[in-house]
Amino acid sequence: MLTSILLTAGFALMGAGIGAGIVAIGAGLGIGRIGGQAMEGIARQPEAAGKIQTAMLIIAALIEVVSLFAVVVCLLIALGDYTF
Amino acid sequence: MLTSILLTAGFALMGAGIGAGIVAIGAGLGIGRIGGQAMEGIARQPEAAGKIQTAMLIIAALIEVVSLFAVVVCLLIALGDYTF
Amino acid sequence: MLTSILLTAGFALMGAGIGAGIVAIGAGLGIGRIGGQAMEGIARQPEAAGKIQTAMLIIAALIEVVSLFAVVVCLLIALGDYTF
Repeated sequence: MLTSILLTAGFALMGAGIGAGIVAIGAGLGIGRIGGQAMEGIARQPEAAGKIQTAMLIIAALIEVVSLFAVVVCLLIALGDYTF
Repeated sequence: MLTSILLTAGFALMGAGIGAGIVAIGAGLGIGRIGGQAMEGIARQPEAAGKIQTAMLIIAALIEVVSLFAVVVCLLIALGDYTF
Repeated sequence: MLTSILLTAGFALMGAGIGAGIVAIGAGLGIGRIGGQAMEGIARQPEAAGKIQTAMLIIAALIEVVSLFAVVVCLLIALGDYTF
């Protein structure tokens, strides 16, 4: 029994670490695409840089919120007390 | 019994290592795309280099925050005390 | 019993090795894309080479920070003391 309790902690921590990594992939794909297209847009119309930058930050913040929330979930799993 | 205690540490550390690696993939994909398009944009409109660089750093910082946070989660798992 | 002790170290070290490899994929994808687009940009506008190179180094440094941090996490796992 104690056996499986502790194996549990192992799987939990493994999931927290891998999960944090996958969160970063999501944030990278999403914010990266937004930022990349914004760079292209500013280069094409430099006088619209302000407008593009404002919209870029608003939409990227949405991905940021979800990502930080997800990383905090992984952090809570990582900081869990597994000493039964 | 001691058996599974130690197997736990193995899975946890494996997850921390693989997770840290996946974080780097996310940061690479995201910041890489932003940086790549920014390079192209500066080449197309060298006079807009300042605006493009400012926006580039702002948006890349958002990915950086999530990535560093995720790596810290992996670091906490890696530094965990598994000597029960 | 000694069996699983060593299995633990095996999983941990396996994760550290695979993780370090995945970190290199991430850094390669990211810095590779930035560098590739920068080469193309300098070739298109050689007079903007200075601006492109400055921006290239700034943005590549962000990926470098995350990658080195992730490799250090893997190194810490690899150097861990597994002689229980």
